[in-house]
Amino acid sequence: MSDLRVTIKRDSEREERVVTTGTTAADLFEGDRGVVAARVADQLRDLAHPLSDGDEVEPVAIDSEDGLAILRHSTAHVMAQAVQELFPEAKLGIGPPVKDGFYYDFDVETPFHPDDIKRIEKKMQEIVKRGQRFSRRPVTDEAAREELAAEPYKLELIGLKGSAADAAEGASAEVGAGELTIYDNLDARTGDLCWKDLCRGPHLPTTRNIPAFKLMRSAAAYWRGSEKNPQLQRIYGTAWPSRDELKAYLERLAEAERRDHRKLGAELDLFSFPEEIGSGLPVFHPKGGVIRRVMEDYSRWRHEEAGYSFVNTPHITKQELYQTSGHLDWYADGMYPPMELEEGHKYYLKPMNCPMHNLIFGARGRSYRELPLRLFEFGTVYRYEKSGVVHGLTRVRGLTQDDAHIYCTREQMADELDSLLTFVLGLLRDYGLEDFELELSTRDPEKSIGSDEVWEEATRALREAAGKQGLSLVMDPGGAAFYGPKISVQVRDAIGRSWQMSTIQVDLNLPERFDLEYQGADGTRQRPVMIHRALFGSIERFFGVLVEHYAGAFPAWLAPVQVVGIPITDEHVPYLQEVAARLRKHGIRVEVDSSDDRMQKKIRTAQKQKIPYMLLAGDEDVAKSAVSFRYRSGEQKNGVPIQEAVDEIVKAVEDRVQA
Amino acid sequence: MSDLRVTIKRDSEREERVVTTGTTAADLFEGDRGVVAARVADQLRDLAHPLSDGDEVEPVAIDSEDGLAILRHSTAHVMAQAVQELFPEAKLGIGPPVKDGFYYDFDVETPFHPDDIKRIEKKMQEIVKRGQRFSRRPVTDEAAREELAAEPYKLELIGLKGSAADAAEGASAEVGAGELTIYDNLDARTGDLCWKDLCRGPHLPTTRNIPAFKLMRSAAAYWRGSEKNPQLQRIYGTAWPSRDELKAYLERLAEAERRDHRKLGAELDLFSFPEEIGSGLPVFHPKGGVIRRVMEDYSRWRHEEAGYSFVNTPHITKQELYQTSGHLDWYADGMYPPMELEEGHKYYLKPMNCPMHNLIFGARGRSYRELPLRLFEFGTVYRYEKSGVVHGLTRVRGLTQDDAHIYCTREQMADELDSLLTFVLGLLRDYGLEDFELELSTRDPEKSIGSDEVWEEATRALREAAGKQGLSLVMDPGGAAFYGPKISVQVRDAIGRSWQMSTIQVDLNLPERFDLEYQGADGTRQRPVMIHRALFGSIERFFGVLVEHYAGAFPAWLAPVQVVGIPITDEHVPYLQEVAARLRKHGIRVEVDSSDDRMQKKIRTAQKQKIPYMLLAGDEDVAKSAVSFRYRSGEQKNGVPIQEAVDEIVKAVEDRVQA
Repeated sequence: MSDLRVTIKRDSEREERVVTTGTTAADLFEGDRGVVAARVADQLRDLAHPLSDGDEVEPVAIDSEDGLAILRHSTAHVMAQAVQELFPEAKLGIGPPVKDGFYYDFDVETPFHPDDIKRIEKKMQEIVKRGQRFSRRPVTDEAAREELAAEPYKLELIGLKGSAADAAEGASAEVGAGELTIYDNLDARTGDLCWKDLCRGPHLPTTRNIPAFKLMRSAAAYWRGSEKNPQLQRIYGTAWPSRDELKAYLERLAEAERRDHRKLGAELDLFSFPEEIGSGLPVFHPKGGVIRRVMEDYSRWRHEEAGYSFVNTPHITKQELYQTSGHLDWYADGMYPPMELEEGHKYYLKPMNCPMHNLIFGARGRSYRELPLRLFEFGTVYRYEKSGVVHGLTRVRGLTQDDAHIYCTREQMADELDSLLTFVLGLLRDYGLEDFELELSTRDPEKSIGSDEVWEEATRALREAAGKQGLSLVMDPGGAAFYGPKISVQVRDAIGRSWQMSTIQVDLNLPERFDLEYQGADGTRQRPVMIHRALFGSIERFFGVLVEHYAGAFPAWLAPVQVVGIPITDEHVPYLQEVAARLRKHGIRVEVDSSDDRMQKKIRTAQKQKIPYMLLAGDEDVAKSAVSFRYRSGEQKNGVPIQEAVDEIVKAVEDRVQA
Repeated sequence: MSDLRVTIKRDSEREERVVTTGTTAADLFEGDRGVVAARVADQLRDLAHPLSDGDEVEPVAIDSEDGLAILRHSTAHVMAQAVQELFPEAKLGIGPPVKDGFYYDFDVETPFHPDDIKRIEKKMQEIVKRGQRFSRRPVTDEAAREELAAEPYKLELIGLKGSAADAAEGASAEVGAGELTIYDNLDARTGDLCWKDLCRGPHLPTTRNIPAFKLMRSAAAYWRGSEKNPQLQRIYGTAWPSRDELKAYLERLAEAERRDHRKLGAELDLFSFPEEIGSGLPVFHPKGGVIRRVMEDYSRWRHEEAGYSFVNTPHITKQELYQTSGHLDWYADGMYPPMELEEGHKYYLKPMNCPMHNLIFGARGRSYRELPLRLFEFGTVYRYEKSGVVHGLTRVRGLTQDDAHIYCTREQMADELDSLLTFVLGLLRDYGLEDFELELSTRDPEKSIGSDEVWEEATRALREAAGKQGLSLVMDPGGAAFYGPKISVQVRDAIGRSWQMSTIQVDLNLPERFDLEYQGADGTRQRPVMIHRALFGSIERFFGVLVEHYAGAFPAWLAPVQVVGIPITDEHVPYLQEVAARLRKHGIRVEVDSSDDRMQKKIRTAQKQKIPYMLLAGDEDVAKSAVSFRYRSGEQKNGVPIQEAVDEIVKAVEDRVQA
C-alpha cells in the first residue's frame, strides 16, 4: 500500500497528512461524531469515499448548511423505504431536501390519511434504529434501467440524465451530469439489501445518524411540477441534528401559524380578499384602514421632513410610455393585459411608477439648483403575479409602494445614498424592526450598461453607506440588474424570520431612455443620476409583515383601537365616556364597551382584540376620579388618577412606544 | 272688422282686452321698447303675429331668456347676410342661438381670416343701421326647394323636415314639425328683399333691435356634427341687450381666460397632461402635489373628526362585481374596456367605489350598534369620457373621489342627511366658497324602485336638511336616479360661475342587490339605508375649480410656497435662512431666493408665482432683528420683528385665512 498526501481543512486551518491508499474521509474524522460527510476536492462526498493523492478534505458537520441538507435527504430515503415497506405498490417520484426539511413524492392509489402518516413515521423510527448503512454504487444506464424496471418515474429520470431537463423540479438530486449512482440501504449486521434508490447522494453513513425527524403533512403534487403530468402524493417532513432543535423548530412553526397575518387579519377584522374582486387584491376594512392611514400619515410626515416633493400620477397609461421605458420588452410578463380602446390605443395598468416620475422631471427644463429632486408618491401598481405565488398581503397583485425617485448629480450621489440608508433604517426602527442585514448587488460586466467609472462610484458609495451603519453586508457579486447596483435591506422579525423589505437602486438606464437633463452650473447639459427607492417595499407587504412581527398586538400608536373603557357595571358607563372624551381630545382612538356583556367577558373581548390599554372603572374609581389601568400584558394598576392615565397613554402614542 | 277678446299676461297680472281683427302683438305692446316678441297661446311669435280670438298674449322682453335667444338668433341672420354680401359664393349651413351667443356655419373655399371677421362685423353694423325688417313667410316644401336651389345644405334640411333627424344639431331652428317658413330681411324704406333664410323664427322686428354684438372667433365644424360630412367654417358671435352688458360679458370672458386653470396650471407648474400617458389623465407636479396633499390631509382630518372609518380598495375588479352592482348594465359606456386574463376572467377598472365598500359592509355580520357606519376612501376611479368632453382638470378620465358610503337605519337617515349637508357646506366654506345653491332631484314614479314611503321619507329629510341651511333650494322634479333622491350643491365661484360640486345621494337599490343586512335591536334582519356622498366631487375637479376661483393665488394654508425670503443683497441671505429655519419649525413652506437675480426681479418672480408672503431683509432689518413684510397685494410693512412676522404667518396658515 503506497502513501497519499492529503490536506485537512477546518475553517482557516490546514493540516497536511500522509495516509495509506484506501483511507476514507471517515478515517480522517473518526471520533468526531458531528461529522457526517466530507467535501473532497470541492465535491460533497460520503464519509466512505476513498481519498486520492493531493485531495483537500473538509469535514461537513451535521449542523452546517450542507450537513443539514444531507441529513434531510437521507431522512427522505428512510421515509421512502418506510412507505414502500407499508405500501408495496407505491411508486417513487423524487425526494429532495428543501428549506428546513424534505419531501418525497409517491404514486399511490389513494392519498395518504393522517393515520398512514403516523404509521410511516413509526416505521421510519424502526429503520433508524436498525442502523442501515447508506451505500453508494455506480451503475450504467442500462443496469439502472433493469434494476428499476418497476419504478416508471425513475426510468423517466434516467432518460433525462445530463439533459437540459435536469432543471426539472428536484431531478438533479437523482441524476446529474456525471455517472449514474444508486444508493443501497444495507442491513447493519448482514449487509443485505433492504431498499435502494436512484440518487446522486451524498448521504449519512447510517440511518442511526438521523437524530430527530418528524413528518409534517401530505399534499397532492404534479409529477415534475406540470399540470399535464399525473398527480402524485407528496409527504413533507423535517429533520434536525437534535431533539431540542426539532422541538424549537416545531415551536417556531406553531408561533408562525399563530402569527399568520391572513388568520389574524380575519380575526382582528383588518382586511380581506373578496372573491368577487379577484386574487391578490386586498380590501382594507376600517380597523386595517386606520392602521394603514397612520402608517401613511407618518411616512408622509417623515418624507416631508426629509425634503421630498409629493407628486401624483395615474394608474394607467398608453403603451407608448412603457415602450420608452423598456418595461414592455423585459417586464411584460409581470403586467396585466392591456385595455384596447376604440381610439386604437392600448392602455396598461402601471407595474411601476418610475416612468411617470420621469415625465414630471422632464416636464420642463431643470437646473442643477433644483437637485437633488426627490419625487415621492404612494403609487399603487399592479403586477400580474402567478396564482401559485400569490400569498396573503405579502405577495399581492395590487400593491402601494412608498415610492420615490431621486434625481441628483454624480457628485451628490454618495451623500444621497448615505442619507437614504440612514432614513430607511430609522423608519424601520420606528416600527420596532431592529435586526437588519444589507445585501449589495454588484455589476455583472457581461450584461450591464453604463461606464465602469459610474458603476464603481455607485458601488463604492453604496458600500460606504452600508459600512457607516455598522451592519453586516452580504455581497451578491454580479447580481445587480443591468442598469445599476442595488442595496436591499433584509429585516429579521420577532421570531427570527428574514424579510426582504427596502431597496435602494441606482439607475443608469432610464435617464438615458427618457433623455433626462439638467443644466449644470457651467451651463452645459448634464444627465442626472436616478435612484429608485421604496422603504416599506409595499404598504401591503409591510403591513402583512408587521401583523406577524407584532402577532397582531400593534403598538399603541398603530393600534386601531388604542384604549377601551370597561365599566364594572352599567352605572360607570357615563364616567368612562367622560374619560374617553378627554382622550379623544388628544386624538386617541378610544371606545367604551357599553354592551350587555359582563365585565370579565369585556376584558376577554379586549384581549382578543389585542387593544393596548383597558381603563376599568367602578365606584371606588369614580369616588377618587381615577381608573384602573390594565395593560395588554395583564398587568393592572389600580386607582390611577385620570390625568395620569391620559398623560401616560398620550405619551406612549407620541413616542411610538413598542410595548 | 269684428272684435277679438285677448288676454295680456304680465308676470302674475292678467288684463282682458277687446281689439279689432288684424291687431298684432306689436300693437298690444307699442311703446314698450324692451319687448321684442310675444308668447301667444304658449307659442313664441314675432311681434307682427296677428292675434286670434281668445289668445293669451305675454310680452317677451329682450333681456328674458327667450328674448336673448331671439336677439342672438336674429344677429346670426344678420351675420349670415353680411357673409353672403361679402362672400357671395358662401353656402349657408345652420345658425342657432347658443349659451351667451350664436354661431352660423358656412361652406367656403378657405377658412375665414381674422381680417375677414372684422370686415363681416363691419358689414353687420351697416345692416343693423339699415333697420331691415324680419318678415315671416310660410312656404310649401316645393316652393322652398325652388327658392333655395342654390343652398344645398338648406335643401337637405327641407328633406329632414319633421323627421326624427330633426334632432340633428341645430336643425330644429330651421325646420320644425309644422309648416315650413322663410324669413325675409326687407329694406326698411322700399320693402325690397335684401336676404332670406329658411327659418322657424321668431325674430326681432328689425335689425335695429340689435343693441350690441361682437364676433368672437371662427373654427372648423362638420356639417350636422358628423366627421363623415363636409367640413364647414363656423363663426361664433355674441349679442346683448346693451353695450354695457356686452362689455361686462367680454370682461367676464377675459377674466375667465386669465383664470383658466389649464393655463395657470402650466404657469405655476402645478400639473400637466403628458401626451405619453393619455388624454384626461393628469400628473401632479411637486407644487400641485403639495396643494393636493394639504387638501387631502385636511379632508382626512375632518372626516376622522366626523366619525368616518377609512378603508382601501383596489382599482380593478373582476367583472362579476359590476354585474352584481348592475353597473355593467347601465354604465358600461362610461367604463374602460376590460383586461382579458388567461384565467378567463375579465377585469375592469373601477368607475365607482360603492360596490367595493358594499363588500366591506357585507364582509361580516353587522349589528345596529355599529350604525351609522361611514366608510371613507380617497378612491381613484376611471371613466372613459368621450374625447370631446375631456377638459383640463374639470373633466378627466381618472379622478379621485373623496368618496364615502354611509350605512344607517331608516330612523338615522334624517339626522345623517342633515349633518352631512352641514359637513359639506362647512368644508366648502373652508376653501372660501360661500355662495351655494342646492338642487333637490325627486322621484320619477315611472322609473324608480323602492316604496313610496321610503322615497317620501328620504325626500322630506333632504328638503328639511336643505331648509335648515337657509339656502335657496331648486327643485328638479322627477330628476332623481331610479334608486333614490339626491341633493347636489352648486357653488358660485369668485367670478360668478356656477359649478356642480358635492352630491348627497340616497340609494335604495344597492343594499338590495348586495343583500346587505344588519341585525336590529330586536334581533331581526334589516336592510340598511345607503347614502353615497362626495364632497369635493373629485379632487381633480375641485382643484381645477379652486385654481380658477383663486386665480392661482392660493390662500396661505394651501400655497405650495407660503413664504419667500428676498435678500436686499447676497449678504442678507444667511440672515433670511435663519428666519426661514424658524418658520420651518412651524411647518411653514418657505424658500429663500438666493439666485443671482436682483431684488426687484426676485419680487417680480414671487409675484408671478403668487407666493402669499415675501420677507425682505437689508442692513436695517438685520440691525433690528426684523424683516420687511410684503403681501401679495403689494402692501408692505417695514421693520416687523421676526417673531411677529412668524406669528402672523403661522396664524394665517392655521386659521386658513382666505387672503
